Amino acid sequence: MLNFVFKNQTEILFGKGQMSEITSRLPEQAKVLLLFGGGSIKKNGVYDQAMSALAGVDVIEFGGVEPNPTYETLMQAVTTAKEHDVNFILAVGGGSVIDGAKFVAAAYHFDGEPWDILVKGASFSDPLPIGAVLTLPATGSESNGNSVVTKKATSQKRAFSSPTVQPQFAVLDPEYTYSLPPRQVSNGVVDAFVHVIEQYLTYPVNAPLQDRFAEGILQTLITEGPKALSEPENYDVRANVMWSATMALNGLIGQGVPQDWSTHMIGHELTALYNLDHAQTLAIVLPALMYAQKEQKAEKIQQLGKRVFDINEADTAVQIDKTIKAVQDFFEAMLVKTRLTDYDLDEKAISAVVANLEKNGMTALGEHGDIDLEKAAQILGLAL
Amino acid sequence: MLNFVFKNQTEILFGKGQMSEITSRLPEQAKVLLLFGGGSIKKNGVYDQAMSALAGVDVIEFGGVEPNPTYETLMQAVTTAKEHDVNFILAVGGGSVIDGAKFVAAAYHFDGEPWDILVKGASFSDPLPIGAVLTLPATGSESNGNSVVTKKATSQKRAFSSPTVQPQFAVLDPEYTYSLPPRQVSNGVVDAFVHVIEQYLTYPVNAPLQDRFAEGILQTLITEGPKALSEPENYDVRANVMWSATMALNGLIGQGVPQDWSTHMIGHELTALYNLDHAQTLAIVLPALMYAQKEQKAEKIQQLGKRVFDINEADTAVQIDKTIKAVQDFFEAMLVKTRLTDYDLDEKAISAVVANLEKNGMTALGEHGDIDLEKAAQILGLAL
Repeated sequence: MLNFVFKNQTEILFGKGQMSEITSRLPEQAKVLLLFGGGSIKKNGVYDQAMSALAGVDVIEFGGVEPNPTYETLMQAVTTAKEHDVNFILAVGGGSVIDGAKFVAAAYHFDGEPWDILVKGASFSDPLPIGAVLTLPATGSESNGNSVVTKKATSQKRAFSSPTVQPQFAVLDPEYTYSLPPRQVSNGVVDAFVHVIEQYLTYPVNAPLQDRFAEGILQTLITEGPKALSEPENYDVRANVMWSATMALNGLIGQGVPQDWSTHMIGHELTALYNLDHAQTLAIVLPALMYAQKEQKAEKIQQLGKRVFDINEADTAVQIDKTIKAVQDFFEAMLVKTRLTDYDLDEKAISAVVANLEKNGMTALGEHGDIDLEKAAQILGLAL
Repeated sequence: MLNFVFKNQTEILFGKGQMSEITSRLPEQAKVLLLFGGGSIKKNGVYDQAMSALAGVDVIEFGGVEPNPTYETLMQAVTTAKEHDVNFILAVGGGSVIDGAKFVAAAYHFDGEPWDILVKGASFSDPLPIGAVLTLPATGSESNGNSVVTKKATSQKRAFSSPTVQPQFAVLDPEYTYSLPPRQVSNGVVDAFVHVIEQYLTYPVNAPLQDRFAEGILQTLITEGPKALSEPENYDVRANVMWSATMALNGLIGQGVPQDWSTHMIGHELTALYNLDHAQTLAIVLPALMYAQKEQKAEKIQQLGKRVFDINEADTAVQIDKTIKAVQDFFEAMLVKTRLTDYDLDEKAISAVVANLEKNGMTALGEHGDIDLEKAAQILGLAL
């Protein structure tokens, strides 16, 4: 096992009715920026519940944060926040809104061009504190310090990470997910699944507990994910998906083990260029990447097949191929298509993605740093 | 799944050499009470490493905290801490030392008789901050707020719990466990195993991820525990046992599910009366308790057998009996005896334990509250 330092500071408020807990966790004389997305929270009652919990608190609203939140929109939110001198951000939404809140929090007191936080790793101080009310289980953003922001002007999707912008609390009420469109449910399950894979499917370092935890999340997503589509108002199913998505990327399972993240890095460019849903890009890239890296990942792919998919082939090559197929089949069962051509993309997309990877310095991806531009092109070729 | 609120504030510093990180985490102008046990840390080099890391820091030593730390000794530590006006406690040892540190921290500013914290749930304020350097993986005390203290004068073993006394950081260096006596290794593995069981082996509430995590810890302890005895200087084995013991009782796996803890409550009285090791009492009580409660726990016992011990019997009764036997065999394989008579205790012990349970108000134990004094006597009878 590798050395690690781990702490997760987010207080999880899990279950029906937990919104009522948020007010006691705001600062004295709170002036809250309520950040949200396209307005679905106004239709499904979450907005009303939040405003009811915040009765008597000074609230400034900023709606319209997009999926794959843009720098351009978030900078408007920074302006609004400054105009009203807020001292807290309550992000109500999915990963995009929470990621956006982290960027707004970091940019609030930043001197200079906040885009530098994303592209130059510029340091920032005194970020606004954040709370999250999660409506879409997927990214784990509610209890980590990660944020991904896209600059529309240049089609650049970039990330930053800091424990100082991690939410202080996160309300996880499974009922808030009942009204999600099926496509978002599918995307969320696939996203969480791939988060686990990025921290698990590398090479063995004798860390059996981390493996068991990762496999446990995968198993839960495989049994509960399809039920979330077929039984949208099954509370326990929604709760299990929600808790799995949070645990998939709250830092725990990745401690002391190598990590990959190449599927995400390649996928980000597909989103930046063609506006594919984040999860769609992961579903395209991962099976092809597993195939291209099947030698480096042989041991863990076999273990994944055996423990998670109950595949027990004596022949190693068959075991590996069947496991890759099982992952792909799971994405398809979640109604997320797994080939570039399913999204009307062809070979032209490959060169465009590779050019973007080069521009963004993503030339040595994966746990061994051996996914160079040629390998990335090969992976995308396998995904046609 | 049940509602829950969860946060774990302890920063885990895991791996070789992490002791060097502690100084940066002390308060300004730290005056540290270094709390430790019987002196093994002076023989195995941990004391020297701690003092070297603390070079230049004002340190007051208090050694001699016993296994099952006593109120009497800890009150002496409180006196020492007050005399020297310390502002931080560094607990270097196993669960007993860390539990003791929590009590000293709580008692430090307490007005009145600090025993009331344990027997009356008296509230306390402004506890001293604590850091932990773990030398014995077992109790999980390094990243939870629980403390168990025994009053020698009255043979009372009592607990209190508060997030305010949870360690701010915990150094988990697997090398510090190389020199542990085999009996302490055995006890630690059994203790951690039973911590998981207390949070897992109740009744299903459709919380599959919690189940998978619990099963993952049990599986890891079963494969790594015996190796910790046979290969005492195998770093990865020690690391895996250490991380498993921490995860077993840092609050995570018990969120949203019913919990039992009756094995611990009955076991505590055996320790208080006969000075048995904590883990010995658990190894005695658990198999008998599983047998006595096999109807209430039927579903989870079968699942435990299937998923953790690979027992797959068509007949439910056989499945259950074989699973209980497998748990008992695991304890015996860890060289911890499982019968009262193995410790020269007979029926007289049963009535004494039951009398103590009654005195301490432990008359409705277990996840259903159905373990009354009669049932407790029956369980202990099965363990003769």
